[in-house]
Amino acid sequence: MQNLNTASMRVRDGRLWILDQQTLPQRQNWCATDTAADLIDHIRTLRVRGAPLIGLSASLLLALLAESGMARPQLAQSLAALGAARPTAVNLMNNLARMRLALEQEAYAAAMAAEALRLVEEDRSLCAAIAGHGAALVRPGSRLLTHCNTGGLATAGIGTALGVISVAAAQGKVQKVWVDETRPLLQGARLTAWELGEQAIPYTLICDAMAAGLMARREVDAVWVGADRIAANGDVANKIGTYSLAVLARFHDIPFYVAAPHTTHDPACPDGDTIPIEQRAASEVTGVAGSFGSCQWAPQNADVYNPAFDVTPAALISAWVLDTGVVTPGQAQAGIFRRPLAR
Amino acid sequence: MQNLNTASMRVRDGRLWILDQQTLPQRQNWCATDTAADLIDHIRTLRVRGAPLIGLSASLLLALLAESGMARPQLAQSLAALGAARPTAVNLMNNLARMRLALEQEAYAAAMAAEALRLVEEDRSLCAAIAGHGAALVRPGSRLLTHCNTGGLATAGIGTALGVISVAAAQGKVQKVWVDETRPLLQGARLTAWELGEQAIPYTLICDAMAAGLMARREVDAVWVGADRIAANGDVANKIGTYSLAVLARFHDIPFYVAAPHTTHDPACPDGDTIPIEQRAASEVTGVAGSFGSCQWAPQNADVYNPAFDVTPAALISAWVLDTGVVTPGQAQAGIFRRPLAR
Repeated sequence: MQNLNTASMRVRDGRLWILDQQTLPQRQNWCATDTAADLIDHIRTLRVRGAPLIGLSASLLLALLAESGMARPQLAQSLAALGAARPTAVNLMNNLARMRLALEQEAYAAAMAAEALRLVEEDRSLCAAIAGHGAALVRPGSRLLTHCNTGGLATAGIGTALGVISVAAAQGKVQKVWVDETRPLLQGARLTAWELGEQAIPYTLICDAMAAGLMARREVDAVWVGADRIAANGDVANKIGTYSLAVLARFHDIPFYVAAPHTTHDPACPDGDTIPIEQRAASEVTGVAGSFGSCQWAPQNADVYNPAFDVTPAALISAWVLDTGVVTPGQAQAGIFRRPLAR
Repeated sequence: MQNLNTASMRVRDGRLWILDQQTLPQRQNWCATDTAADLIDHIRTLRVRGAPLIGLSASLLLALLAESGMARPQLAQSLAALGAARPTAVNLMNNLARMRLALEQEAYAAAMAAEALRLVEEDRSLCAAIAGHGAALVRPGSRLLTHCNTGGLATAGIGTALGVISVAAAQGKVQKVWVDETRPLLQGARLTAWELGEQAIPYTLICDAMAAGLMARREVDAVWVGADRIAANGDVANKIGTYSLAVLARFHDIPFYVAAPHTTHDPACPDGDTIPIEQRAASEVTGVAGSFGSCQWAPQNADVYNPAFDVTPAALISAWVLDTGVVTPGQAQAGIFRRPLAR
């Protein structure tokens, strides 16, 4: 396979390298990723994260394994193992479904390489299309609030919600970005803050529970978030804390936008209640750990609840901004998400 | 002055010791507190925290300084300096107003000692009265959510909101307590979790942004919080994140209770907009620091917004549970908080 470069993935001489998103922004550490077990470990520990990126890295790895001579049954096994690495984001399942079709072809190694590269290229254009549609919704002088990380690190392109913000900023329409730190894993404080800093877009970091007070003081003009899965009724699973923002935005009459590629859409999930929500380790909540160090501050035997995602009902969403276009609440209610989206 | 013992303050042989609440729960570290400058430093760094406790520790210190022979002008100076240590909580100002009257008496040293001890005794009975009134509002089998720390550590007695929970738990009515970790300073994860553990009350620690999802799943029966100041229209300043919970509780039709002593009430503040809100250091949001260690994870030059408190409007409060009794929304609207509360 040809060499390849994104903000957080590289293919070099037939080997996949991923940028460790747990060590950012303190260290830019590229990890060799040679087996499905390697990548599953990277995904579970969130070295690889972001719904689009997870699917793309799994697809690239499978293509590289096929090129290196792995036999079809082992490839099928690796594909199945990768498919189970994170349960909530559906892009992984969608991408792997396409890789499975490639694997069934006679010349499967070439077919898988072509398909993986096609997925990467598609993701780039999906991001650009989302950003184009989304930036048109941003009013001049906007103060936008975002949660978690949905930028170039999370995709092969410029990102989803953060891609919208980047393009709107390039159009001179963004006064500032409020960045939720996004406990427990601090993707906002570490990754979004870093990406915005690199792009010289003015931002202010806040703790998640500070958003409400800003909204009350009319210092937030819109909320932009990504999605890990969009159900058939328009409900959205996304990083824990998203639902809280959606309720707060509704209470304060502030638009709440979800930006995502159509690969996030899962018509087979009737609603948010049927989206599986990953539960994670207690140690993420009783403290923090990363390349910045580690601390545990809660009592050692503390009982902890730590869902990685929550579900925002369609009724709280002002618009779903997809590569295929902007879906309105009326279209969602009329059932547009019940079938695959027209491209 | 006689020796004295509370969960977080001690007087021993004429010297004030305070329990360092920044090192809890990892270390129980008692700090000698000999001057106003010592105590102001303890207050600013949150070694001494909790609206009632701040006022009591300042009063005790002034009494001890008077007993040790400090002259009236220096005492007045110390009193003024202590009064400026934290701007939001009004208990400090209220307690110091009484200490100032004692200072004006002929035998001011004895008068100040008597007044400080009276304030401590009063706080104990205020807490007990609040807990009695509040526990009557807790239904059997309740799952209660609380924010920050409002327990024995924050007062001379059993606490305010957490005192209600303790008494209700002793009455067998509490199924479990959801504890907000309370970023940035983690008073929930460190102090409330520790106090509930010591009392063997079942609790589960969550990140602040997880509360909304629990409410949506009907896993929260009521929210109980404390207060740093109650304005004349019933608006309440309390730990940052409180307002977010109040909005979420209203959206999910869950009762939202404020528990506080009448010393938290400030009829001179017409509404929440006139309550001064303390802004704190960026380093609290870009990372954490404590006896558990320290980490900084955000980019070093990150711009940060870090208000210590937010304001919850009266309209979102189901009841104000005070030592003087339970104030209903109707009574608040009718102006009960415009005058000093009848005791």
